[in-house]
Amino acid sequence: MSDIEQLKQQIDEQGAVVRDLKAAKAEKAQLDEQVALLLALKKKLQIAGGNGEAADGPKKKSGGSSKSLVLKEPKGTKDYTPKEMAVRTEIFRTIVSVFEKHGAVTIDTPVFELKEILVGKYGEDSKLIYDLKDQGGEECSLRYDLTVPFARYVAQNGISNIKRYHLAKVYRRDQPAITKGRMREFYQCDYDIAGIYDPMIPDAECVRVAVNVLSQLDVGKFVIKINHRKILDAIFEVSGVPADKVRAISSAVDKLDKASWSEVRREMTQEKGLDATVADRIGEYVQISGSGEEVLARLQALPELMASTKAQEGVKDMGLFFRYAKIYGILDYVSFDMSLARGLDYYTGIIYEAVLVEENARPSTTETQLPAPVAKKSGKKGKEEEDESQLRVGSIAAGGRYDELVGMFSSAMHAKGKKTDVPCVGISFGVERIFSI
Amino acid sequence: MSDIEQLKQQIDEQGAVVRDLKAAKAEKAQLDEQVALLLALKKKLQIAGGNGEAADGPKKKSGGSSKSLVLKEPKGTKDYTPKEMAVRTEIFRTIVSVFEKHGAVTIDTPVFELKEILVGKYGEDSKLIYDLKDQGGEECSLRYDLTVPFARYVAQNGISNIKRYHLAKVYRRDQPAITKGRMREFYQCDYDIAGIYDPMIPDAECVRVAVNVLSQLDVGKFVIKINHRKILDAIFEVSGVPADKVRAISSAVDKLDKASWSEVRREMTQEKGLDATVADRIGEYVQISGSGEEVLARLQALPELMASTKAQEGVKDMGLFFRYAKIYGILDYVSFDMSLARGLDYYTGIIYEAVLVEENARPSTTETQLPAPVAKKSGKKGKEEEDESQLRVGSIAAGGRYDELVGMFSSAMHAKGKKTDVPCVGISFGVERIFSI
Repeated sequence: MSDIEQLKQQIDEQGAVVRDLKAAKAEKAQLDEQVALLLALKKKLQIAGGNGEAADGPKKKSGGSSKSLVLKEPKGTKDYTPKEMAVRTEIFRTIVSVFEKHGAVTIDTPVFELKEILVGKYGEDSKLIYDLKDQGGEECSLRYDLTVPFARYVAQNGISNIKRYHLAKVYRRDQPAITKGRMREFYQCDYDIAGIYDPMIPDAECVRVAVNVLSQLDVGKFVIKINHRKILDAIFEVSGVPADKVRAISSAVDKLDKASWSEVRREMTQEKGLDATVADRIGEYVQISGSGEEVLARLQALPELMASTKAQEGVKDMGLFFRYAKIYGILDYVSFDMSLARGLDYYTGIIYEAVLVEENARPSTTETQLPAPVAKKSGKKGKEEEDESQLRVGSIAAGGRYDELVGMFSSAMHAKGKKTDVPCVGISFGVERIFSI
Repeated sequence: MSDIEQLKQQIDEQGAVVRDLKAAKAEKAQLDEQVALLLALKKKLQIAGGNGEAADGPKKKSGGSSKSLVLKEPKGTKDYTPKEMAVRTEIFRTIVSVFEKHGAVTIDTPVFELKEILVGKYGEDSKLIYDLKDQGGEECSLRYDLTVPFARYVAQNGISNIKRYHLAKVYRRDQPAITKGRMREFYQCDYDIAGIYDPMIPDAECVRVAVNVLSQLDVGKFVIKINHRKILDAIFEVSGVPADKVRAISSAVDKLDKASWSEVRREMTQEKGLDATVADRIGEYVQISGSGEEVLARLQALPELMASTKAQEGVKDMGLFFRYAKIYGILDYVSFDMSLARGLDYYTGIIYEAVLVEENARPSTTETQLPAPVAKKSGKKGKEEEDESQLRVGSIAAGGRYDELVGMFSSAMHAKGKKTDVPCVGISFGVERIFSI
């Protein structure tokens, strides 16, 4: 990419940052800072000899009859060179070998699904779904993850029991941040267990799979944060969050890994209209984290919380989980973190997320280790400072239990509402993020 | 799938056949036959207890407030079960090992491309391209093949020389015919050679790769039909086809593997308005086929044709090709067939297509060997009789030389029209079709 093209792309991206901030009614100081960055980039472009048009967005087909064509991958996607493919193939081989050792078989599903299959599964993130154009026929959307297609597959085929893995690309119309490995087209490597087992055994197995994969990929020091949706729900309940605000407040809590409590509190009270005393009560709970033993002891010492049946169920699950984690020898890798919420609507039990411990995320060495086309795009500052510090690549694996997703599909299929629940739990690895380490 | 759902799908498909025929202003006899089939299916559905609505197309969300959901893959796509995945993995392993033995490295490109990259590359088939919905941003389309993205990759990265393979899914809004392996989402396994080599060496290598892959996959007896675009062009020229009709007539000729000469002649004269004497002259040429030696001798004995520079160039290429084919020991697998035309716009030299020799295509045993979900759909008659005999799965591999595609991209990229031609030749395997054998 030429310098000018690179600048234009930076301007495009920075323009999007500013638009997003405006749309989100961000604070003036923050907005001003990002606008200043945008103006600086535009000036740089003028000096470099390009015009400033690119900032107006992607409709820059250099109008008129000139047949100039922009030769590039669509925004947020990338080609893989033979060198990168060699790395990817090796990573996949490692992941598949762990998945297969843990008894999984593989399936494949189409890259797009009927739109109605995806509707209502992703909460606030549903706006990121890519739709296909209506060209006469069914309405379809590109898959957003591999979990919903898996649940559809299980329901459609009347399967009561399967351990399956699936390595495939998924699609999200997110704001790309290539150096951090956040792409619009990216691979997910999923391992899921569907069916009825002894409580928390498959849950612990999924976390064990995560530990094995990440250890074998040698990503450096990582920790797997664990929480439980039922405990979270109980916290929101006893704190006094109105039922219709639970998901919104939950997604605010989920930002605690990137933002301070005071910022999250502001989002809750100012943007989402939560009562300040309710927010403060939530704050006391969600800032609890530590080893399983510690956190369980602290939760059990909270009579108000433990009065809730949901909390009791969640705490019982987590007690079992940490016992199995000990037996599996993975206790050193996990931490019980009440601030972990996960955005997706379909989780019903344990949830987890693997993150690198900061010392591993070395931005300077990162850049030299990046595969060529990505490395060329380093040096972008504006975007980098948008929402995450340069030091994190975000979660590299995540998942949880979703006991009702298959039932939603199977009951929808049978006119009489005959519902076959197939409880599921799974873990998903983001290879692009592992790549960018 | 229940019998009723299966019937409904058959009605959907048959409805589409009828609509297509009407749109193409097909002959009354043919249309009547297909309409009769459609009515018979609808009657069958009534007897089976379903209503006849399904024939109206896909907008059958059982109106009203009932939340009934159709749990299925989108039309023309399929899930792969663990068993099928095992077969697929094994087929891929074989193909990759041959590709790598022939010196290729692999790349990956995004599943969608900027729409303008695909425009004007596929002739009459462009209407089959899937577009993404405009959700603000760039206009994108799902890739139609792996060749155009490869040419884009070569041009964009200024590559002068590469042997690459790519196994990935491509997308075509075609009328699906699942038992024949014609899907809307399907894998292509491509091997291409870009760069300047001694004439016809890479062309012969691609055909050799085809022979090796098909032999190792043990698909049964096959033949690779070969022809040359320049000879075809010369035939059209000396026969007197007007320049603006060449591609249309070429695509009519391409149907000679499925239709008789009299049918193709009728398409040329009645649908495409070609002069009858011109059609007859074409007929004399395109019905020539046989061994390389035979056909070359026959062509060289046609002074009218050989007066054309294009014909001379093509015949020279083919002479060389058959010499290399002999050296490579693949002469027994190839046949020189003047009726092979291939639909795509971008071919400039040799073209080829591997087809199974009829004795292999055993529809009865085929059905038992099919992977489960496909096998369930057997027994559909109406669709089967549409355009191909039950005995063929169509071509299982095809390709050719395309010397101008990279140049089209690189010249479009450079404002001054600076063009870097990178001649290419390649071969593409259709795994779904090999699957269904």
